[in-house]
Amino acid sequence: MSGFDELGFAKIDNHRPVRRGFPEAVFCEGKTPDQVAQIVQKMNEGERNILATRASRQTFDAVQKLTPEAEYHESARLIVVRKETIEPDPDRVILVVTAGTSDIPVAEEAAITAELMGHKVDRVFDVGVAGIHRLFAQHEKLSQANVLVVCAGMEGALASVVGGLVSKPVIAVPTSVGYGASFNGIAALLGMLNSCAAGVSVVNIDNGFGAGRLAGMINSMR
Amino acid sequence: MSGFDELGFAKIDNHRPVRRGFPEAVFCEGKTPDQVAQIVQKMNEGERNILATRASRQTFDAVQKLTPEAEYHESARLIVVRKETIEPDPDRVILVVTAGTSDIPVAEEAAITAELMGHKVDRVFDVGVAGIHRLFAQHEKLSQANVLVVCAGMEGALASVVGGLVSKPVIAVPTSVGYGASFNGIAALLGMLNSCAAGVSVVNIDNGFGAGRLAGMINSMR
Amino acid sequence: MSGFDELGFAKIDNHRPVRRGFPEAVFCEGKTPDQVAQIVQKMNEGERNILATRASRQTFDAVQKLTPEAEYHESARLIVVRKETIEPDPDRVILVVTAGTSDIPVAEEAAITAELMGHKVDRVFDVGVAGIHRLFAQHEKLSQANVLVVCAGMEGALASVVGGLVSKPVIAVPTSVGYGASFNGIAALLGMLNSCAAGVSVVNIDNGFGAGRLAGMINSMR
Amino acid sequence: MSGFDELGFAKIDNHRPVRRGFPEAVFCEGKTPDQVAQIVQKMNEGERNILATRASRQTFDAVQKLTPEAEYHESARLIVVRKETIEPDPDRVILVVTAGTSDIPVAEEAAITAELMGHKVDRVFDVGVAGIHRLFAQHEKLSQANVLVVCAGMEGALASVVGGLVSKPVIAVPTSVGYGASFNGIAALLGMLNSCAAGVSVVNIDNGFGAGRLAGMINSMR
Amino acid sequence: MSGFDELGFAKIDNHRPVRRGFPEAVFCEGKTPDQVAQIVQKMNEGERNILATRASRQTFDAVQKLTPEAEYHESARLIVVRKETIEPDPDRVILVVTAGTSDIPVAEEAAITAELMGHKVDRVFDVGVAGIHRLFAQHEKLSQANVLVVCAGMEGALASVVGGLVSKPVIAVPTSVGYGASFNGIAALLGMLNSCAAGVSVVNIDNGFGAGRLAGMINSMR
Amino acid sequence: MSGFDELGFAKIDNHRPVRRGFPEAVFCEGKTPDQVAQIVQKMNEGERNILATRASRQTFDAVQKLTPEAEYHESARLIVVRKETIEPDPDRVILVVTAGTSDIPVAEEAAITAELMGHKVDRVFDVGVAGIHRLFAQHEKLSQANVLVVCAGMEGALASVVGGLVSKPVIAVPTSVGYGASFNGIAALLGMLNSCAAGVSVVNIDNGFGAGRLAGMINSMR
Amino acid sequence: MSGFDELGFAKIDNHRPVRRGFPEAVFCEGKTPDQVAQIVQKMNEGERNILATRASRQTFDAVQKLTPEAEYHESARLIVVRKETIEPDPDRVILVVTAGTSDIPVAEEAAITAELMGHKVDRVFDVGVAGIHRLFAQHEKLSQANVLVVCAGMEGALASVVGGLVSKPVIAVPTSVGYGASFNGIAALLGMLNSCAAGVSVVNIDNGFGAGRLAGMINSMR
Amino acid sequence: MSGFDELGFAKIDNHRPVRRGFPEAVFCEGKTPDQVAQIVQKMNEGERNILATRASRQTFDAVQKLTPEAEYHESARLIVVRKETIEPDPDRVILVVTAGTSDIPVAEEAAITAELMGHKVDRVFDVGVAGIHRLFAQHEKLSQANVLVVCAGMEGALASVVGGLVSKPVIAVPTSVGYGASFNGIAALLGMLNSCAAGVSVVNIDNGFGAGRLAGMINSMR
Repeated sequence: MSGFDELGFAKIDNHRPVRRGFPEAVFCEGKTPDQVAQIVQKMNEGERNILATRASRQTFDAVQKLTPEAEYHESARLIVVRKETIEPDPDRVILVVTAGTSDIPVAEEAAITAELMGHKVDRVFDVGVAGIHRLFAQHEKLSQANVLVVCAGMEGALASVVGGLVSKPVIAVPTSVGYGASFNGIAALLGMLNSCAAGVSVVNIDNGFGAGRLAGMINSMR
Repeated sequence: MSGFDELGFAKIDNHRPVRRGFPEAVFCEGKTPDQVAQIVQKMNEGERNILATRASRQTFDAVQKLTPEAEYHESARLIVVRKETIEPDPDRVILVVTAGTSDIPVAEEAAITAELMGHKVDRVFDVGVAGIHRLFAQHEKLSQANVLVVCAGMEGALASVVGGLVSKPVIAVPTSVGYGASFNGIAALLGMLNSCAAGVSVVNIDNGFGAGRLAGMINSMR
Repeated sequence: MSGFDELGFAKIDNHRPVRRGFPEAVFCEGKTPDQVAQIVQKMNEGERNILATRASRQTFDAVQKLTPEAEYHESARLIVVRKETIEPDPDRVILVVTAGTSDIPVAEEAAITAELMGHKVDRVFDVGVAGIHRLFAQHEKLSQANVLVVCAGMEGALASVVGGLVSKPVIAVPTSVGYGASFNGIAALLGMLNSCAAGVSVVNIDNGFGAGRLAGMINSMR
Repeated sequence: MSGFDELGFAKIDNHRPVRRGFPEAVFCEGKTPDQVAQIVQKMNEGERNILATRASRQTFDAVQKLTPEAEYHESARLIVVRKETIEPDPDRVILVVTAGTSDIPVAEEAAITAELMGHKVDRVFDVGVAGIHRLFAQHEKLSQANVLVVCAGMEGALASVVGGLVSKPVIAVPTSVGYGASFNGIAALLGMLNSCAAGVSVVNIDNGFGAGRLAGMINSMR
Repeated sequence: MSGFDELGFAKIDNHRPVRRGFPEAVFCEGKTPDQVAQIVQKMNEGERNILATRASRQTFDAVQKLTPEAEYHESARLIVVRKETIEPDPDRVILVVTAGTSDIPVAEEAAITAELMGHKVDRVFDVGVAGIHRLFAQHEKLSQANVLVVCAGMEGALASVVGGLVSKPVIAVPTSVGYGASFNGIAALLGMLNSCAAGVSVVNIDNGFGAGRLAGMINSMR
Repeated sequence: MSGFDELGFAKIDNHRPVRRGFPEAVFCEGKTPDQVAQIVQKMNEGERNILATRASRQTFDAVQKLTPEAEYHESARLIVVRKETIEPDPDRVILVVTAGTSDIPVAEEAAITAELMGHKVDRVFDVGVAGIHRLFAQHEKLSQANVLVVCAGMEGALASVVGGLVSKPVIAVPTSVGYGASFNGIAALLGMLNSCAAGVSVVNIDNGFGAGRLAGMINSMR
Repeated sequence: MSGFDELGFAKIDNHRPVRRGFPEAVFCEGKTPDQVAQIVQKMNEGERNILATRASRQTFDAVQKLTPEAEYHESARLIVVRKETIEPDPDRVILVVTAGTSDIPVAEEAAITAELMGHKVDRVFDVGVAGIHRLFAQHEKLSQANVLVVCAGMEGALASVVGGLVSKPVIAVPTSVGYGASFNGIAALLGMLNSCAAGVSVVNIDNGFGAGRLAGMINSMR
Repeated sequence: MSGFDELGFAKIDNHRPVRRGFPEAVFCEGKTPDQVAQIVQKMNEGERNILATRASRQTFDAVQKLTPEAEYHESARLIVVRKETIEPDPDRVILVVTAGTSDIPVAEEAAITAELMGHKVDRVFDVGVAGIHRLFAQHEKLSQANVLVVCAGMEGALASVVGGLVSKPVIAVPTSVGYGASFNGIAALLGMLNSCAAGVSVVNIDNGFGAGRLAGMINSMR
C-alpha cells in the first residue's frame, strides 16, 4: 500500500492516522469547493473523523452534496464528519480561554478540534488582562485544567498571566483581533513569543486548529 | 458580587466603573451586531453612560432595536447611550487638533468620548505643518488648553510642533491617513514616538477613543 | 532677547524653561563630550536644573571639568546639575514600576528626572506578570499613586495589567530588554500600544527621561 | 509569608517552586554580575536546583565567589547549582535534535535544563534537511522519544519534517544561526510558525531554556 | 529597424525574441483589458508564441475579440496564443512539484510556460514535508528530472528537502498560500533563500512564469 | 487677512499661492465627495488653477455639480480647474519616463501637474531596464530634458540607469506596480533610495503629484 | 578612449566628469585603505576635484601617503583633493539646516560637497521643531536660500516645516540620529517621504554627499 | 555504510559527493575553530576537494595545523583543500560580475567555488548601472558567457540590466554593501527578486558560495 490515495490535485494521507492518532485535516483556503468536496468524499471511505478548516459556507455546501452527514460550525469555519466517538476522560480537561469576545471563533476552532479527538473541553471567554479580576474569578478552572489554550489578540498579554498562574502547558494562539499597531496579530504573536512565564509555547496567528490538535496530543500523554 | 455580568460570550465589567470613573466601552470589531446589541442592553440596566466604538451602521441598527435611546455618530463610528450628564468645567478645556480634514473621524472619536465623560472640548482642524501659519493663528486656543489631543497621519509632525508650543500634556494619535510609505499609520506612529518635544505620549493608530479617555482622565486631576 | 543662546553647533533654548517649567535637557548621543561640556557650562549660567541624558562616563568626565558640581548617575546614564530644590508634595506620588531587574536603568532615568522636577517618586521593581502575586502584594502603592510609569521589556504585558488595576494615568515605557523576537523593544512597544486598558499611553523605547518628564507634568496639574 | 524574598532590585519568587515544580530561573542579561551573584546566593538558602541563563563567564566568576558549588556550562552559557537529584524515568526520553553543529549551544541549554528537572535526555545533532538521510538514520530514536525539541536556524525546516515523522509533541526552537535573509532567526521562526505538521509549537529565538522547561513539564504528565 | 513596435502606452520588444529564444510576455496587472488586447494583437503579427500572465477573464474576453485563437488557462490566469510547436526532448524533463493543492495555480503557470517553450514537463503535486513519505514515493521522478521547479507556501521547506535529494538545479517559487505569520509568502520566501541545500535559487513570490521560463532556459543548455 | 479661509472641516490656504507659485492641492482620500466639492468651490473664488488628487469618479461628480468647469483625468485620478494659462518655455522640457505601461497613471499625475504649472512636458513610456535598448533609443530626449521624472515599480532600477545617463536632476517615483516581494512599492522605493547615480532624489510611493510639482519648481529656477 | 581607467578591482569613470560636471566620488566603505589610495592616486592624474566619502582616518592615512595634498574632514568623514577652484555666485546660496547638534556630521558632508562644486553654502544648525522659535529666528536665511538641505533624525519633522515655509526645493536627508523606534533613521525617512509640503524630496539615510551633489546640480540651473 | 561519518557535534556527509558531484562544504560561522579543524581533517581522508566558507583567519590557523595543505583566500574568507583537478572546458565560461569594488569578496567566493568545481571563470568588476557605459564595454564577455553570476549591493539593479542583455541564466547575489536604507542587503535582495528580466533567480544575501555552486551545476549540464 502506498500510504496515500491519489486524486491528482491532492494526495490523501491514509498512512498518517495510524501514525498520528488523528486523520489529516483539509485546509480549505486556496482549494476550490469542488476539490474539498472530493477530498472529503474520499476520506469518508475510511473510518476516521474528518475535519476541514477555514471552510466558507460555499465550500460546506459543496461538501454536503457528496457527504450529507457533514456538519458546519459557522463561526469556527469548520466542517466536521463524525465517524467514531471517544468517551472523554472527565478528569483531564483542556481549558480554552479568550481575552475577548472577538477571539471566540479561533477558540472554538481549537475547542471543537480537541473535542473531536475525544477530549473534555471547558471554555472561559472574555477574561482579558485589562480587567484581571474576571480572570481570577476563574481561578479554580485554571488550576484544575490539564492543558490550556489561550487565544488573545491586541497585546496578547493573557498568555503570560495565565502561564504564571498554572503549572501545566499553555498553548498560546495569537489572534488577528485588533487594529492599527496590532498588525493583524503580530503584536500578540511577539508578546506571546517573549513570554517569560514557564510552559508557554506559541502557534501561528489564528491557528486554533493547530492549538486544539496539540492540546489533544499532550492531553493524551500518560 | 462577582464584579461582572456573565453573558457567555462576554463578561461585562460592572466592577470597573467604580474603579475607573467610566464604564467599560464595547469594541465592536469582531463581534456580531447581535452580540453588541445584547452587551449594550445588559449595560443599560446600570446607570453609566455607554460607548460602543468602531460600530458599523448595521451594528447600530441591531443596538437600536434593543436600546432605542442609543445615538449614532457616523463619521466617528460611535454608538452612545447617555445616562447621566456632567456639567463641564469651562476653564479646563481639552483641545482636539487635526493635521488635515481626513483625520476628523478619529478626532471626533476622541472629542465625543471626552465630552461624554463630562469635559469641555474644543476643536481645531486642518492645521498641518506644511502651512504652519494656520496653526499659529490658533495660538491662543493652544496655550489655554489644559490637555491636548493631536491627530495626524502621513508624517505625524504636528504632534512635535504642538508639543514644543505648549506646556501641557499632548496625547498624540497617529492616523492611518496617507498612502504609500505612510504604511497605514506606521510613519505617523514612528514620528510621534520619536518626538523630542516634552510631554508627548502616543496611543495606537486611529485610537481616538483611547486618547479621549486618557485626556478626560488627566483633565480630571486636581 | 532671541530666546536662545548660540553656540554654533547648538542653540540653547533659554526661552523654553519659562514655557515648560523645566530646562531643556541635553541628549548626549551623537555629540562629542566636549560639545556636551560646553552646552552644560552655558546652561549653568542660568538658574534652572540641568539634565544630560544617555551620557557615557567619558562625557561626564568632560562635563565635570567645566562644571564641577555636576553629578553622575551611572546606571541611568544621567548627568545632573542641581540649581534649585522644590519641596515635593507628599500626597502626590509618582510610582515607577518595572517588570524585571534589567529594566531598572530605564526606570531610574524616569525616577530621577521626576525627582529633579520636584516630585515625590516611589519605586516598585521586578513585579512582572509571570509571577503576578508579586505585583498584587504592592496593591496599596499602586492604588495610591497619582501617576504611574511602567517600564517593561520582553512582552511588555505589565502596562496593561497595571492599567486595569488603577484609575490614574499610566505612562508605558517599552525597554529593549529581551532577546530574539523582542527585537530590541519592538515586542514590548507593540504590546503597550495595543493595551486595551484605559489610560495607558506610550513613549519611545527606553525613553525613561520622556516618561519622567511627562509624569512630572501631569502630576503638577491641579 | 509574602511569596517572595525582596532584594530591592529583585524579588525572588519562593512561591513559584511549589506551583511550578521548578525554581525561578535567573535571566542574566541586563543584570550586573553582582546582582546575579546576590540573587543566586539568596536562592541557595532554599532547597531547589538553581539555573542562571545567558550567563557570561564574568557573571559566573561573581556567582562562584558567593556560591562555590555553582557549575558553568560555557557553550550553553548556563550556571547550575544542583541541590537535589531526581532519578529519571528511562522509558520517557526527551530527544533534543539540531539541524547543524552551530545550533548545539541552544540545544545544550534545552538539554541541560531538562536534565536538571530530572528527565532522561538524548541528543541527535547535525541532521538538517539538506541531507535528509542523516535524519532517517535516527528514525528509531525519533519514534521512541516522548517529547522532542528541535533546534534549527536558517530555514528551520527540520521542525516540520520531524513533526511529520513522529506522533509526540515537538517544541521548535528557532536559532539565530545563519546570515543575510535569516535575519537573526526570523526566517526560522516564521518557518516553524507556519509548519503544517501536527503537534509543533514554537518558543522564542534561541530560547533553549524555555524549550527545555516546557519539554520537562510535558514529559512529567501522566 | 528600431527593435520595438511603438503603441504609445507600450513598446513591444521585437528585438528580444532573437536574443532570448522566447517572446516578451505581457504582464496584465495594471493594464486595462483594452491595452492588453492591443498588445497581443500587435504581437500576433509576428511568428512567436505569445503569453499573457495574471490575466483576468475580463482581460481574456477583450483579447479574444481581437485574437480569436487565444486560449485561456483559468486557474493559472494565463492567455496563450500558439504560433509554433517545438517537439520536446523526452529525455530532458522539467519536473514541477508542489507542497499542497493550493499551490497548483502557481505551478501550472510555471508548467504551461515551459511547455509553450517546447519542453516536456511532468507534475508531482501535494507532497509537502509534513507527510514526507508522499515525497519519497516519487523518488524516481525526482532523480530523473533535469530541472526542478518547487512551489510551496507556508514554511516553504519542500525546496530544501528536494534540493538535498537531487543533483540538478532547483528553482524555488514561494507562494502566498498560508495565513497569519506566512505574511503572504514572506515566510516561504525567507525559508527558500536560507536553504542550505546545493543548487537552490529563488524567484519572486507566486512567480510561476519566471520559474517556468528559467527552467526552460536551463533545460535548453547543452 | 488671516491667510486662510475657514470651512470648519478645512482651512483653505490662500496665503500659500503667493508663497509657492501654485495653489494648495486637495488630497481627496479620506474626504467625502461633498467636502471636496465645497473646498473646490471655495478655491474657485480665487484666480489660481485648482488640482484635486486621488479623486474617484464619484468625487468628481460632486465637484462638477458645484464647479461645472472642472475636468477629470480618469487614469491619473485628477480633477483640474483651469483658471490661468502660462505659456511654457519650449526649451525647458520636463521629461516623464516610465518603466512599464502599468506605471502610466502615476506618470500622468506628474505630467498633468507640471503642465498645469505652465511647463512643457514630454513623455517616454515603457522603457524598463529589462529591454534597455528601448531606453537608449530615446537618448536624445533624455539628454535634452531639463528635469526628469522617472516612475517605476517592481525593482525600480530605471531611476539609477537614467540618473547615470543624464546631468540633470532626476525625481524618482516608486510605484506600487508589481506583486509578491515588491510589497506595494517598497522594493522600488528602497532601490531608488539606494541609487548610486548622482542627482537622484525620491518622493513617496505613487506620488506623481509631488514629483510633478517639484519638477515644475526646479524647472522654474533661473 | 574607453571612458574609464581600469585598475582591476575598480573602473575609474573618466567619462563622467564631462557628463556630470563633477568627478566620480569614491565610496570608501567595503574598500581596503589601499584600494582607496590607489583609486585616488589614479584620479589625481586628472584635473578635477576628488572626494572620498565615509573615509576612516586609517583610510585617509593610506591616501595621504600617495597623495600628500589630500585633506581630511574628520566629522564629515570626507577626504578632499582640491584641483580647481570655482568662484561661487554669492546670490545663489545653498542653505544646510539641521534639527540637532548630532546631525552636523551629515550636514557637513552635504555642505563640503556643495562647496567643492563651487557653490556658496550657509549653515543653520540645531533648529528642531520642538523649539520652533529657533527656526523662525532664521526666517530671513530660509527665505533667501536658493536650494535647501534639511538634515534631521528622530521624527524628521523639520523637513515638512521648512518645506511649508519656503518656495524653493528642499532636499531632505534623514539621519540615523535617535534611539529606540527611530530604527536608525527609518522613522525620519518615512516622515520625510510622507511630507505633504511642496517641493520636498528625499535621499538615503545619512546620505549627506548625495544631498550636497543634488543641491549643487539644482543650484547650477539657470 | 551509513552515508556519513559521525563526529558527535557533526555528521560528515560522505554520501552526498556521489549524489551532488561536489563535497559538502563546511559553514564555519557558529562553529569553533577546533570543530572546523576536525571536520576538515576527517573530510581529508576522502578524495574530494574541500571548501570551508566564512572562515576567519583564526579558524584557518586551526585547520592548517591538522591539514597543512589547506589554502586560505582572505578576502573571500574561504579555506580550500585541493585534492583533484578537473580540466575546465574553455568554451563554457562562467562570468562573475560586480556592481562595485566592495562587492568583490562575495564575487570571489563565487568564482573560487566554481573554479574548484572545475569550471573556467572570468571576472568583470565595478560595472554598476550608474555608469552603464562601463558595462557595455564588456558586451562581448557578457554575450559569450554560458552562465552569469551578478553580485550587487545598494539597489541591486545590475542583475536586471544584465538579465536583459543576455540569453543565459543569471544568478543574482545581493550583497550587504551599502548603508541606510540598503538595510544590509534587503534593498538589493528585493530589487533582484522583482527583476522583470528573464532568467534571473536569486540566492541569499552575500551567498557567493551558493551562487558559485549553482553556476557550476548549471554549467555542467549538457
